[in-house]
Amino acid sequence: MRTLILLRHGQSVWNAADRFAGWVDVPLSDVGRKEAARAGALFAKAGLLPDVVHTSLLRRAVSTADIALDAADRHWIPVQRTWRLNERHYGALQGRSREEVRTRFGDERFMAWRRSYDVAPPPVEQDADGDRDARYRHLGVTVPETESLKDVLARLLPYWESAVCADLHAGRTVLLVAHGNVLRALISHLDRIPSDAIRQITVPTGEPIRYEFTDTLRPTDSHGLPLGGNP
Amino acid sequence: MRTLILLRHGQSVWNAADRFAGWVDVPLSDVGRKEAARAGALFAKAGLLPDVVHTSLLRRAVSTADIALDAADRHWIPVQRTWRLNERHYGALQGRSREEVRTRFGDERFMAWRRSYDVAPPPVEQDADGDRDARYRHLGVTVPETESLKDVLARLLPYWESAVCADLHAGRTVLLVAHGNVLRALISHLDRIPSDAIRQITVPTGEPIRYEFTDTLRPTDSHGLPLGGNP
Repeated sequence: MRTLILLRHGQSVWNAADRFAGWVDVPLSDVGRKEAARAGALFAKAGLLPDVVHTSLLRRAVSTADIALDAADRHWIPVQRTWRLNERHYGALQGRSREEVRTRFGDERFMAWRRSYDVAPPPVEQDADGDRDARYRHLGVTVPETESLKDVLARLLPYWESAVCADLHAGRTVLLVAHGNVLRALISHLDRIPSDAIRQITVPTGEPIRYEFTDTLRPTDSHGLPLGGNP
Repeated sequence: MRTLILLRHGQSVWNAADRFAGWVDVPLSDVGRKEAARAGALFAKAGLLPDVVHTSLLRRAVSTADIALDAADRHWIPVQRTWRLNERHYGALQGRSREEVRTRFGDERFMAWRRSYDVAPPPVEQDADGDRDARYRHLGVTVPETESLKDVLARLLPYWESAVCADLHAGRTVLLVAHGNVLRALISHLDRIPSDAIRQITVPTGEPIRYEFTDTLRPTDSHGLPLGGNP
């Protein structure tokens, strides 16, 4: 049995305020911290004990992993963090409220930016990026100016295929803690969902989703199963 | 410049209750969580930004590292965890209060077990060990039944010389979050303190200590410098 648990981070302070975060490194809200602890309790209850965890470099994913694993008594497992699991870069939308963007640009563009496969929001202005910080310079990573879901999938797959699949092949139970759009992209890949149907995938915060894989890393179900039951 | 920051975990609930913890995996107290956040603020204030962190497998060290790095905005750096940085195994003393041990066994043995170099406490009874848990079976590690400080040094040095020194040689600023006796053993090695003088080394909880090293990894000072000033 090759098991993967997908987990979107708990509610962040910008989820709570309905603002686009993207690569802006906002912390969890108190609700988000509770969601993370509940997720860990769900792993333990299901007897699903991660052997290794992969997260993004963003605090809301890092903290969710730390809190969930502590709650599951698996705080001691190896952790790998990568920018390739970072949330989609939301370009010039980062920091703006959904309401502001919807009012200013209209429903059609708002929905295209949020839900389409290959439409990227307007790029971030060079001066407005609070997110081109030391961690990316340090890692030699060029921070994108904006990303579509297709862009996210393209930079996510090399990591999935090398690091995560290697762990699954080795028989490890893998926890992957990431972000709404990263998980949508990954689920569309795992479940072979056509690009025009991806808009229907939504991943709630703090709800672990379980995948089982065959030896050739095909999912045994047509989709992941929520550990906490269907919300 | 090759920089190492040593950090003993913040106060645990058993530090607060004056009980021997050893390999028993007790959590931080609220005081300990505050100490950890303060330690991270001290790194940031000193401009000491860790590139990598090494911790034990015990929750009080793992949580201290997580909290301190979050406070220093370095939550995204690579982390390595190893049983070789676990606290000294305190044998049959684990779980007992210092007062109980002192009363039952007398001052002389109490002080020898706490402070001597090569005297180990009585071994843990086979049934009394709540700490031989899955994490060690999983890793193929035989949990000791008791350890002297000399034993700790012997199992710590292989990790120091391979993993930690490799990071220092590569020019990385290293944070090492561990335990009172592990840090006493390591400091005695770094500062070439004779075994009969080790009893004088004490390492307070949550106080970062900075070491600078030459290219051949000798400390440039005769001892580490507390980041927060001498308490």
